[in-house]
Amino acid sequence: MNTQEIQHQIATAVQMAKDSDILSGSMTNNVTINFVANAQLAVGGSAAMTYMPDEGENLARNGGSMYINVGTMQTIYEESLPHTAQVLHELHKPWVLDPVAIGSGKIRTYVLKRFKEYKPSVVRGNASEIIALANLWGLLEEGGPSRVRGVDSTDSVLAAKEAAIALAKWTGGAVAVSGETDLVTDGNHLIMSYGGSVMMTRITGSGCSLGGVIAVYAAVASPFIAALTGTNLYNVAGKRAAAKAGGTGTFQMYFLDELYNATPQDVSENEITAEEV
Amino acid sequence: MNTQEIQHQIATAVQMAKDSDILSGSMTNNVTINFVANAQLAVGGSAAMTYMPDEGENLARNGGSMYINVGTMQTIYEESLPHTAQVLHELHKPWVLDPVAIGSGKIRTYVLKRFKEYKPSVVRGNASEIIALANLWGLLEEGGPSRVRGVDSTDSVLAAKEAAIALAKWTGGAVAVSGETDLVTDGNHLIMSYGGSVMMTRITGSGCSLGGVIAVYAAVASPFIAALTGTNLYNVAGKRAAAKAGGTGTFQMYFLDELYNATPQDVSENEITAEEV
Amino acid sequence: MNTQEIQHQIATAVQMAKDSDILSGSMTNNVTINFVANAQLAVGGSAAMTYMPDEGENLARNGGSMYINVGTMQTIYEESLPHTAQVLHELHKPWVLDPVAIGSGKIRTYVLKRFKEYKPSVVRGNASEIIALANLWGLLEEGGPSRVRGVDSTDSVLAAKEAAIALAKWTGGAVAVSGETDLVTDGNHLIMSYGGSVMMTRITGSGCSLGGVIAVYAAVASPFIAALTGTNLYNVAGKRAAAKAGGTGTFQMYFLDELYNATPQDVSENEITAEEV
Repeated sequence: MNTQEIQHQIATAVQMAKDSDILSGSMTNNVTINFVANAQLAVGGSAAMTYMPDEGENLARNGGSMYINVGTMQTIYEESLPHTAQVLHELHKPWVLDPVAIGSGKIRTYVLKRFKEYKPSVVRGNASEIIALANLWGLLEEGGPSRVRGVDSTDSVLAAKEAAIALAKWTGGAVAVSGETDLVTDGNHLIMSYGGSVMMTRITGSGCSLGGVIAVYAAVASPFIAALTGTNLYNVAGKRAAAKAGGTGTFQMYFLDELYNATPQDVSENEITAEEV
Repeated sequence: MNTQEIQHQIATAVQMAKDSDILSGSMTNNVTINFVANAQLAVGGSAAMTYMPDEGENLARNGGSMYINVGTMQTIYEESLPHTAQVLHELHKPWVLDPVAIGSGKIRTYVLKRFKEYKPSVVRGNASEIIALANLWGLLEEGGPSRVRGVDSTDSVLAAKEAAIALAKWTGGAVAVSGETDLVTDGNHLIMSYGGSVMMTRITGSGCSLGGVIAVYAAVASPFIAALTGTNLYNVAGKRAAAKAGGTGTFQMYFLDELYNATPQDVSENEITAEEV
Repeated sequence: MNTQEIQHQIATAVQMAKDSDILSGSMTNNVTINFVANAQLAVGGSAAMTYMPDEGENLARNGGSMYINVGTMQTIYEESLPHTAQVLHELHKPWVLDPVAIGSGKIRTYVLKRFKEYKPSVVRGNASEIIALANLWGLLEEGGPSRVRGVDSTDSVLAAKEAAIALAKWTGGAVAVSGETDLVTDGNHLIMSYGGSVMMTRITGSGCSLGGVIAVYAAVASPFIAALTGTNLYNVAGKRAAAKAGGTGTFQMYFLDELYNATPQDVSENEITAEEV
């Protein structure tokens, strides 16, 4: 695909999501659970959140895609997250993984290891999380420890390039690395997406809600186009919201407004550059 | 009651809630738990949320009413929700049930079945949820499956008329069916309430927070007047907030502002029509 | 310290937090978990929330301070809250305790009793909670029951003066009592801080998020200065946000904006008075 073809597919994905009202269930953390749901609704999806194994399976069966985020780990997730991912994998349903705070606890590590065999369609994270996941799954030749601190990245997006490509090749899907400039790859194409705002790092949930929005797009587009559409949209909305905001409080509300208002053209024309893999 | 008497009682309920600061505890889902609390506070109530059986009982004993919403089911709720509902029933305290996502899992179904004997004062839901609950409780002669999808309704409000009346007759309380036009019934009266905004369907929690607000009103008015007061208020606030909002983000904030600012007259004069049951 | 020295240290704390991006993990309630994180980020900290014992320990080890709030008690907290507090105590890391809704359930009472030996650096609560905690820990000579109702205080701030001083003397740290006028003490100094807005009582989380913000400051200042800096900041931000807000919805967003925008001078110059202990 050349850039023009990619842009066309992005525009189509934005419009299809607006028209679809497609169900994209989530098993996610409680810090940003409300923001994830509202972001999914803003772009035209339908949101439903659950913690339980049988309900996760039902969402997998009834929805067009799912979003799984391992933040605020809870005991029941030891059972319900791998079970739901397995069902998604068996049904060939697209799902997005957000490996938040990878490395910070036993259940979290267990669950993230299990996900290797269920191949998430899109992995979204900051640079440190992407490097850590590629290491956990043994995909890097010289796996050194990444530098996850709490939920923050201490690595640059480009430092995660090799890990992102390795993950995308393993899953056959796509990887989105969020940072000042964002990186999206399917293992063959590598796109850098520009825009956003530093305010996105001073609110909680800009990453989680992007994962949820990518899940909505993954129900109507390929993993690579879904990851890129969500990433472009967030760069458009972040830039526009920051221009209006008086601080991080109003920024959040304007940001949701911009997610709701962005047109297919707005999203497809956000600045991107393509690199060789 | 004629419409004028109903309107008078609505205005009284709004003012009493503003003056009361009455405690209306909740056992609810984590997606919209913050919005529920803020909506209850905006109309003059006091909010407190818990998951634990002994604390649910304490809230039932110490508060004027309670709100129980089965979204984001968790293991402890298998014990704590029926126990709390039983205490409320024994104490003759009003409580509001929101049967979110009915049918999507085992614990959820078990809990909702148990609630039949504890007769919620108000049931609030979308059309599909109301039909599904009436079916689950065996109240409909020809119970066909409703069409709950995730947390969404795929049935129209009027399609739930028979189910709503059957539920109200069983509980001796009231039922509020939320949709484009809302239906409120106590089994004898049937009121349609107009207004609101399509944006209420593109944010999460407009239904849940209405349930919490109805619980506040149920502490100071009859179930029927409480359900109608909350429903009217939401139609007023939704319409006004949509007129100011630039999207679904600012809509949420203006909506809370309008809940806080609406006068007894604003709420009592919202357009309603009465139908024969 | 005289008032001028206190003000100088407050200004320094505000600036250090803005420059630090220091990790201040939380184990807190789900009603206001998002607000706590956003408030911590607004003042320059980094937020990470967990429920699990091993992850709580990791946050204690890796962060500069922690915030523990016992609202929306869950089963796992019976293990993870005392364990994390013990680790914090052993590592001499500052931590802030918010004894929300003290007295409302068995696990909550057990956990709060255990905290006595792990001496929180700052205790923040409303007057009724502070009195109840001092009673629970046996620090008051004539301990009568306080009047906690749900999550609300029914006692005045000054009524908690003796309890606040007793707690501060026991922990060797500080206590912040939130109310119309706020009281901060380290057992030797006693400061009253003025400002804020009545709207802070009609939204949920102004107290919890203050606790989280004090935890950020406690990573860069003494417990007493941290408690006072957070309290002053909240009085500044509350007053300014209320002047702009059209209701409790917009108030929340403007409030976060003001947390983000307040300068060291704004916070240090908020009106305070010193009293003899």
